Amino acid sequence: MQHLLTLENLDRPSIMRLLDRAEQFRARGAARSLLAGRTVLTLFFEPSTRTRTSFVLAAKRLGADTLNFDLSHSSTVKGESLLDTLHTLEAMHLDALVVRHNENGMPAYLAAHAHTKVAIVNAGDGTHAHPTQGLLDVLTIRQRRPDFEHLKVTICGDIRHSRVTRSDVQALHTLGVRDIRLCAPAAMLPETLDGFPGCSTSEDFDRAIAGADVAMMLRIQKERMAAAQFPAAADYHAHYGLTARRLTLAAPGCQVLHPGPINRGIEIAPDVADGPQSRILDQVANGVAVRMAVLAELVGPAA
Amino acid sequence: MQHLLTLENLDRPSIMRLLDRAEQFRARGAARSLLAGRTVLTLFFEPSTRTRTSFVLAAKRLGADTLNFDLSHSSTVKGESLLDTLHTLEAMHLDALVVRHNENGMPAYLAAHAHTKVAIVNAGDGTHAHPTQGLLDVLTIRQRRPDFEHLKVTICGDIRHSRVTRSDVQALHTLGVRDIRLCAPAAMLPETLDGFPGCSTSEDFDRAIAGADVAMMLRIQKERMAAAQFPAAADYHAHYGLTARRLTLAAPGCQVLHPGPINRGIEIAPDVADGPQSRILDQVANGVAVRMAVLAELVGPAA
Amino acid sequence: MQHLLTLENLDRPSIMRLLDRAEQFRARGAARSLLAGRTVLTLFFEPSTRTRTSFVLAAKRLGADTLNFDLSHSSTVKGESLLDTLHTLEAMHLDALVVRHNENGMPAYLAAHAHTKVAIVNAGDGTHAHPTQGLLDVLTIRQRRPDFEHLKVTICGDIRHSRVTRSDVQALHTLGVRDIRLCAPAAMLPETLDGFPGCSTSEDFDRAIAGADVAMMLRIQKERMAAAQFPAAADYHAHYGLTARRLTLAAPGCQVLHPGPINRGIEIAPDVADGPQSRILDQVANGVAVRMAVLAELVGPAA
Repeated sequence: MQHLLTLENLDRPSIMRLLDRAEQFRARGAARSLLAGRTVLTLFFEPSTRTRTSFVLAAKRLGADTLNFDLSHSSTVKGESLLDTLHTLEAMHLDALVVRHNENGMPAYLAAHAHTKVAIVNAGDGTHAHPTQGLLDVLTIRQRRPDFEHLKVTICGDIRHSRVTRSDVQALHTLGVRDIRLCAPAAMLPETLDGFPGCSTSEDFDRAIAGADVAMMLRIQKERMAAAQFPAAADYHAHYGLTARRLTLAAPGCQVLHPGPINRGIEIAPDVADGPQSRILDQVANGVAVRMAVLAELVGPAA
Repeated sequence: MQHLLTLENLDRPSIMRLLDRAEQFRARGAARSLLAGRTVLTLFFEPSTRTRTSFVLAAKRLGADTLNFDLSHSSTVKGESLLDTLHTLEAMHLDALVVRHNENGMPAYLAAHAHTKVAIVNAGDGTHAHPTQGLLDVLTIRQRRPDFEHLKVTICGDIRHSRVTRSDVQALHTLGVRDIRLCAPAAMLPETLDGFPGCSTSEDFDRAIAGADVAMMLRIQKERMAAAQFPAAADYHAHYGLTARRLTLAAPGCQVLHPGPINRGIEIAPDVADGPQSRILDQVANGVAVRMAVLAELVGPAA
Repeated sequence: MQHLLTLENLDRPSIMRLLDRAEQFRARGAARSLLAGRTVLTLFFEPSTRTRTSFVLAAKRLGADTLNFDLSHSSTVKGESLLDTLHTLEAMHLDALVVRHNENGMPAYLAAHAHTKVAIVNAGDGTHAHPTQGLLDVLTIRQRRPDFEHLKVTICGDIRHSRVTRSDVQALHTLGVRDIRLCAPAAMLPETLDGFPGCSTSEDFDRAIAGADVAMMLRIQKERMAAAQFPAAADYHAHYGLTARRLTLAAPGCQVLHPGPINRGIEIAPDVADGPQSRILDQVANGVAVRMAVLAELVGPAA
């Protein structure tokens, strides 16, 4: 593994090894010497303080030097010169480059054009992939339900534009989940199920959540709600919000996930977000551990 | 001590212990291992590069990992989701959270709702408190005059809106100062002396500074001067600026303090700010040491 | 050496010692203990993510604590209070202050007014100097051609406003280069050759590059092209761009340098920038090494 660009081709043993390593980091911490002297740079073309902070903490806890490349001040961030930025950063000797970009495939493009052995980590690209989110989600699920082949998983929200869903589905499918239900208003369902192995779709959240072992809620953008004919957030909540009532339709102990930040009262009711079935804060903690595992795997000494 | 939110209830031995520890750090530095592996995050809702830098340096010099949470890029900084931001950061495992906010009581609100043992350090909240400023001010005074019970202290400026004054007064009173004179134009005096133990008020700076052992000047906001009927800075300076002439009214060796950044020629004359009685740069140096002491006390191993 | 403000008065042995040390850092890395416990702060009044990143990496790789002083949030960045900012930062105990400013001489002004032994490193001031760029450029040249006294060097671009050129010329002249050709449209040539020892000027790039061993291209500002009567970038490129054809006029193996970021197709053709004679990425790598050498020299223990 040189880069982490997508979960599409990551096999089950590779995923399991990363999850196991993340669990070890959560349980016992990490040696600060693991990435001592290595440099990890974050390059975010879309703002995300949370995800960036999670990666930076992961790198620091492994002993790496960390830098944020501040694009608001950079003269070389647009169009054709992006590769010049990459090669300049490589010439300063980077070990890992954590990239977020609003265009699909930009991290892969950088990986394809790198001159050095720098590890490119995709921290979210367009609607394409968010592989560390996929990994932290399956880690979270596994902590209570390692029997993936028996799970029913419902993912609800703006599936069509969701890189989180694509990475989640790939990880879940690889780990053996057979019943993945994508639920959204029609305008937010994908136009095709290509790239969504093992998935079915539904516009009816009550039906989609029936018997589910896991409910993964997605953050909704206000402008997208309007385009999907939900002019008021309350309308969206009534049809696609996860409420305590709806959660009773799921299997007992159904785990509730959300990639954050949550819109309380829109895609999720506050009492569900804060309730005993919520794994949302576990996801955050697992996020740091998964990113440590990924960086250790890509940049660290051979295990 | 789990948090540092105010100096209101900090007793004399606790303050003295923090000041002694700060003096030790100034004299001999600190072991980088003291906070090794700990994470200190700064969360500033009001900009203050100076105070943030002082805290970050303090944390680094104790060996902690430091992060600035950049609110300008954050999707979760407003209104009801502030607690979600707190809990998300806690889930990433923080040891200390240094908070500045323009609303009174926000650090205490976060402390009351924290899920973990994270230490909340108030770096200034509204007009309420700025406890590390209070501590560094009494440390500075003590270096030349440890006999607090004999001191006359004059504080001059926009007392009403000053969190610095509230914390200074609490620390001075606890350490035994009996004669604290708050001086300002009427519109900048507090409406009541509740919360200002041991204080008297005056609108006449010449009288207020007579015989003072310490003159603490406050930074004045231009918009506040106008509201207090000083349309021109020169008018304010004539009445409430600390000039060399006025300083001769104070006791010999009167120490001059200012929390910075100073408005030269407005609340303080340049020759006084730069003169032999000025402790302003000592305050800055003491600020780093006090913040080291606070972080070591809250987050470090038991002494 | 206490500061690095310009290369004007740096003698040949001093430059050679810095270059040798930089080569050692490139070859063998540095002990992280070299600047352990030291604090290096960057203070950039002009944005330059690249240069700042290069300095920060250099400091981190020597084990120093690094901070960026974020001026966009600072209350004390303008006019007369700049010295107050300096003295405040010094009071927090800085070992080195890396300064970029759009006014000529500002780093020297700060050095002249410093209260402490803080090392001021000029990271570019106005049109005056960019000494670490000068050093990294001669280091790059020396790696292939250490026989400076035999070299013909052509520098092409907006010479008049170029701090890079001034520092390059000083370093080249000190190291023995006798034939330095400054090439630009008339409006971009210096009004006098004072400060450009060993230089001749030309408006004809084909003539200026004939037989050159080194071609140093400068980044061109679009607004400056228009003022020099090149309304379209293509016009500038036709007259002053380094193309493959023009490079054949130079000596075989002529080294191509550019301080970056490059404007592809304007001052340099893409195939030249990416071609075998390009040293542009070597310059970037050498930049980190040179800045390590400078910081080690100024702030580190006596060698």
